[in-house]
Amino acid sequence: MSNEASLSPSAPRGEGQRDPFAPRFDAAGLVTAVAVDARSGAVLMLAHMDAKALAKTRETGFAHFHSRSRGRLWKKGETSGNTMRVVEIRVDCDEDALLLMVIPAGPACHTGALTCFYRRLAGEGLTDI
Amino acid sequence: MSNEASLSPSAPRGEGQRDPFAPRFDAAGLVTAVAVDARSGAVLMLAHMDAKALAKTRETGFAHFHSRSRGRLWKKGETSGNTMRVVEIRVDCDEDALLLMVIPAGPACHTGALTCFYRRLAGEGLTDI
Repeated sequence: MSNEASLSPSAPRGEGQRDPFAPRFDAAGLVTAVAVDARSGAVLMLAHMDAKALAKTRETGFAHFHSRSRGRLWKKGETSGNTMRVVEIRVDCDEDALLLMVIPAGPACHTGALTCFYRRLAGEGLTDI
Repeated sequence: MSNEASLSPSAPRGEGQRDPFAPRFDAAGLVTAVAVDARSGAVLMLAHMDAKALAKTRETGFAHFHSRSRGRLWKKGETSGNTMRVVEIRVDCDEDALLLMVIPAGPACHTGALTCFYRRLAGEGLTDI
């Protein structure tokens, strides 16, 4: 991971300036990735990527993550068929979070909901949105 | 953290059903929080919350996070003035990620950008969106 001055988030940014891409993986080798529906803008799900998942996503154009519970590479939709085609990858200021703009093939959530964020906090409980 | 059948993400969900709220903090005591502009739907930033930051957010109506680098509670905008008023908190299926619907008082990013996700991956580099 380079730490060049041009990567500094507080450095002045010029029109069309290009920075190298240097994702900052955490101690477990992961960055957080948020999948957003490129058409509706809805936040669909949050997952984690290691270097392998990121490389596979860029190589194939389909979202891949690292499953922390199973400890392995996981293609979103590999069993359900609800894959996510990635049309753009955005990066946050300190490069430890990614935003995947995706076209989902089906519901993002394993519950069948379009988004994993289908409930909101109401008092001490949760209600469907 | 309770583990009742009603919390199971694969349990059938009825109209207006209420589940208890039982956030699943990780080994470091944190959940990931994504702040979204409630007016535009734009993803603004990603940060982490411990139980204290979550309680303070609910109590005050303003986004509070846990700074991993500084190891302390942090009110978004405490120095910049760019606070975030939280109008709704959404929860994902496995309750380890939160989505904060916010009205930001100013730019979300410390660079002055409206969102921390102001760059996209283009080839091996990053370009401003």
